[in-house]
Amino acid sequence: MTHFAINMKDVFFILKDQLRYGELCRLDRYRDLNEKTLDLLVNEAVRFAQGVVAPINELCESDPPRFENGRVTCPAAMKDAFRQYGEDGWTAVARDPEFGGQGMPNMMRIVVNDFLYGACQSFNMAPSLTHGAAHLIESFGTRELARRFVPNMFSGKWAGTMALTEPDAGSNLAALTTSARPGGGGYRIKGNKIFISWGEHDLTENIVHLVLARIEGAPEGVKGISLFAVPKIRVNADGSLGRANDVACTGIEEKLGLHGSPTAALSFGQRDECEGFLVGRENQGLAHMFQMMNAARINTGVSGMTLASAAYQNALAYARTRVQGRDVAGRKPGSVPIVDHPDVRRMLLWMKATVDGMRSMIYTGAMWADLSLTLPPGPEREHCHDLTDFMTPIIKAYCSDMGFRVCETAVQVLGGYGFCRDYPLEQYLRDAKIMSLYEGTNGIQSMDLMGRKMTFRDGACLAAFRKEVMGFCEARRDDPAVGSEVRLLESVARDLWETATEMAGRQGTDPLQWASYTYPALLAFSEVAMAWRLLDMAVIAAPRAVGTGRPADFFRGKVLQAVWWVETTLPHTRVRAALCTRQGREIMDMPDGGF
Amino acid sequence: MTHFAINMKDVFFILKDQLRYGELCRLDRYRDLNEKTLDLLVNEAVRFAQGVVAPINELCESDPPRFENGRVTCPAAMKDAFRQYGEDGWTAVARDPEFGGQGMPNMMRIVVNDFLYGACQSFNMAPSLTHGAAHLIESFGTRELARRFVPNMFSGKWAGTMALTEPDAGSNLAALTTSARPGGGGYRIKGNKIFISWGEHDLTENIVHLVLARIEGAPEGVKGISLFAVPKIRVNADGSLGRANDVACTGIEEKLGLHGSPTAALSFGQRDECEGFLVGRENQGLAHMFQMMNAARINTGVSGMTLASAAYQNALAYARTRVQGRDVAGRKPGSVPIVDHPDVRRMLLWMKATVDGMRSMIYTGAMWADLSLTLPPGPEREHCHDLTDFMTPIIKAYCSDMGFRVCETAVQVLGGYGFCRDYPLEQYLRDAKIMSLYEGTNGIQSMDLMGRKMTFRDGACLAAFRKEVMGFCEARRDDPAVGSEVRLLESVARDLWETATEMAGRQGTDPLQWASYTYPALLAFSEVAMAWRLLDMAVIAAPRAVGTGRPADFFRGKVLQAVWWVETTLPHTRVRAALCTRQGREIMDMPDGGF
Repeated sequence: MTHFAINMKDVFFILKDQLRYGELCRLDRYRDLNEKTLDLLVNEAVRFAQGVVAPINELCESDPPRFENGRVTCPAAMKDAFRQYGEDGWTAVARDPEFGGQGMPNMMRIVVNDFLYGACQSFNMAPSLTHGAAHLIESFGTRELARRFVPNMFSGKWAGTMALTEPDAGSNLAALTTSARPGGGGYRIKGNKIFISWGEHDLTENIVHLVLARIEGAPEGVKGISLFAVPKIRVNADGSLGRANDVACTGIEEKLGLHGSPTAALSFGQRDECEGFLVGRENQGLAHMFQMMNAARINTGVSGMTLASAAYQNALAYARTRVQGRDVAGRKPGSVPIVDHPDVRRMLLWMKATVDGMRSMIYTGAMWADLSLTLPPGPEREHCHDLTDFMTPIIKAYCSDMGFRVCETAVQVLGGYGFCRDYPLEQYLRDAKIMSLYEGTNGIQSMDLMGRKMTFRDGACLAAFRKEVMGFCEARRDDPAVGSEVRLLESVARDLWETATEMAGRQGTDPLQWASYTYPALLAFSEVAMAWRLLDMAVIAAPRAVGTGRPADFFRGKVLQAVWWVETTLPHTRVRAALCTRQGREIMDMPDGGF
Repeated sequence: MTHFAINMKDVFFILKDQLRYGELCRLDRYRDLNEKTLDLLVNEAVRFAQGVVAPINELCESDPPRFENGRVTCPAAMKDAFRQYGEDGWTAVARDPEFGGQGMPNMMRIVVNDFLYGACQSFNMAPSLTHGAAHLIESFGTRELARRFVPNMFSGKWAGTMALTEPDAGSNLAALTTSARPGGGGYRIKGNKIFISWGEHDLTENIVHLVLARIEGAPEGVKGISLFAVPKIRVNADGSLGRANDVACTGIEEKLGLHGSPTAALSFGQRDECEGFLVGRENQGLAHMFQMMNAARINTGVSGMTLASAAYQNALAYARTRVQGRDVAGRKPGSVPIVDHPDVRRMLLWMKATVDGMRSMIYTGAMWADLSLTLPPGPEREHCHDLTDFMTPIIKAYCSDMGFRVCETAVQVLGGYGFCRDYPLEQYLRDAKIMSLYEGTNGIQSMDLMGRKMTFRDGACLAAFRKEVMGFCEARRDDPAVGSEVRLLESVARDLWETATEMAGRQGTDPLQWASYTYPALLAFSEVAMAWRLLDMAVIAAPRAVGTGRPADFFRGKVLQAVWWVETTLPHTRVRAALCTRQGREIMDMPDGGF
């Protein structure tokens, strides 16, 4: 039995009604595609997620990968699934056909990951990291290097990882010490990395690690970091496998969740024989890696959202069938399904609105990201680029924190059963906790948003976001269904722009006080973004929310969730925004002996 | 290595400076005690928690109790600890010496549980449940029955449980079907119970289950429930053990946390030979059980708070030593301990204030509960009784939800390491999730608070709370340190009383809309209670928060935490209170097809 469930009506409403994603096919790059192809892809991806990936989720708990003598062994079902990812084209769905990609729009990678991460978070990390690593080589490596590695990675023959973190360089990459010196036709890599997801396993015959290291003599700090491809097994120039490279797995973390995903400590060059290949330019490793990191941040948001989505669907199904307690208003005799209890409905409505708003926010961001790569150069492309940059930390941090909160709420709906392994909720809760921690903690995301993203390109990112939100408010202020909620959004957003301006000033004059309130400010921006997306869906749905029956009820749900979420959240957003610029300095004034 | 840590200065500040707990010794019942004795008891309890209980916490994960062939076997260290609990008097610290109790004030049971649950949540449930079960027999059983069971339970020779829940009667006890018919000098019990914490184990030679069941022919619903003592091994009239009773353990739950605590499914009377003894009066079982349930609800709050406290202490210690990243204001060169980063300090200050406020709220409630039992009959005793009734659902729900939130925040402070089993945070997080679910879900607590506790005894419970809060505000409105925060509390509290009045009206006229907002209303009441306790501590600390050095810094911490928490929380409380009486009916209007 698998527990993966997703409401495809919600997915298609966002893709087709809200975003009109078929219009992507008018772009030159996608001219061979049409909306039907995209629809087919979506349906096929859900089938793959349900049929192939979802059964692994339980396996991650009952028969997880095992570490022994430096080797990690995985159950056969995982190996089969990984191969199928490559064979069926899911690993490189949005990549160029030149190296074996499917040539689908970039946006579709996010949509497909919604289903694949939702079906099994810890396993889907393996193909997802493989894609990211291969895409880095494809983008920045020489064509020779790309030919040597990329096709075998996209096809599911080899896997890939991202090896950034070191014991004393977690969030702070400037401190990393892994070294590279020229030798053997490439480089010799030496150093230790930790927290490498899928850093060792036997899903594939080879693993290609994308490693950040310093070339001897390079500048200190982030300006001296280069990127290397370091295979577990050496790869000859013709692509055939050679002898083992000098890469050792020294241990696997025991973790709260993600039990299906082995988190490795790796040691490179213990015998000074670790061969690596420079990817891209010397000392540009961090800039190159950022391509992968930005995508990884959005994917982290996807993970948080889609685990929340699956948790909500499970809680909803439970609430509809679990009979317990009497109706508080005596509408029915005897015991009733708990979905009739107002407090349970409150939790369900909050989960539904939160999931739907996050999904819309993520898909919208994914579409902008696509347009920022595929539109012809010009102001519209710039605008999409600015929007993507602005939304990345919001999607990463908000969807991870709220994804966890939704999983917690879903557990609550089940009562004591939510605590038991008989239901998948407790696993969702555990798996979902990682997202606020990796790919840059949410605190770091908040400093990125309220720092770099406010001032970058002369404030263009904030300006682009503001233009979108205010444009929507102006157009929909008198909407018959949600006009008053749109006006509330407009008013709260205005307050927030003022907060942003004041904080931008503080960043220079009083950085300690500024940094004390970047996280609440990120939350406030996230809530404005959520309100905007939810109201946008409501505006589209309202004309169809008439009459009786389930079709109309679906659209009525969109209107009700928006009205309720906006009216019960934005008053808090206003308070939050105001508090971000308060004068009190308690956070910094607290003496060490006071803690 | 154990990870249990607690700041005893915080504990004693509440006990001695804020509550003057020594004054309890003026009461007739405690006239043989003095404050020094109580201080000694506190210090001894912490030593016991550190030395005997805390080492078991890791064991709960690495060597948990195992179920095989209907038996649960526990590691030897757990057996030793359980015996020591009894021998050293911790199981019955506040019980009458007649049956082996220590005769300490009732309040001390809560204080001692703060340390014991903090040291090991899942193990401490065993002696705690034993105490609760024995105390029920002591309070409501015949003296003969009490002599037969209670001394062996208080002494740690036998254990006890609470067997309420059935597969189709979780939160709704009215639906329970376990039956009892007269026979064999007592009753014959028949039925199945689930979720029985420590329902089977080999810590002791016998286990006494306190079982709710219906005597044949009893009325339906909650009015036909009686309470029975059902031993695992039969007990002869002289207290010696007879043959096995007809009680079978049919399984153990696999759970998110509490791995040290076996959660049993029990089957009573499979062979129609299960002997039980009526405890108290026929059909009064629920009323009797409520004595235990109210204490259990407060203890659930204690668990949430103390896991949060331990999590905070661990996060603080980590933040002080973990060096990572540069100072945002460049105050120091190179990398700095993360406790210097404002966003980390924001999390620490929030955790500190939340833990300290919860602890004060709980100890205050425990003192009122004690006074409600030990003061001479009269209006003061009534007042304490009303306050206790009012605070019980607040302590249970708020401290469990916020306890979990603090554990989550502590994980966040550790970044990726928080997700790893190398640190105890992930265990705290898992263990802490149960508290919002058991002893009545938090949704049920909110209906208790906004329903029964508002109208009960003509509104006396709310009136008592209101009198305390408003009395404090009136007296401290011009306090030089926190006057403006006291005035903020006063104003928000006034709003909240209005909300309460309006909701009380709605409960009768529009129960569906009322029940849609009981949980946010409970949160608002909790925040008012927290603000009041935090400001009360600040008022006391402020005169000593002068000069430099760690002693003054401790008191400065009390003032800063109160100012910050109140100023950044109560504006949200005001919003919350206002939203509870909104007109929008989206929660109830949502059609099933809209979810």
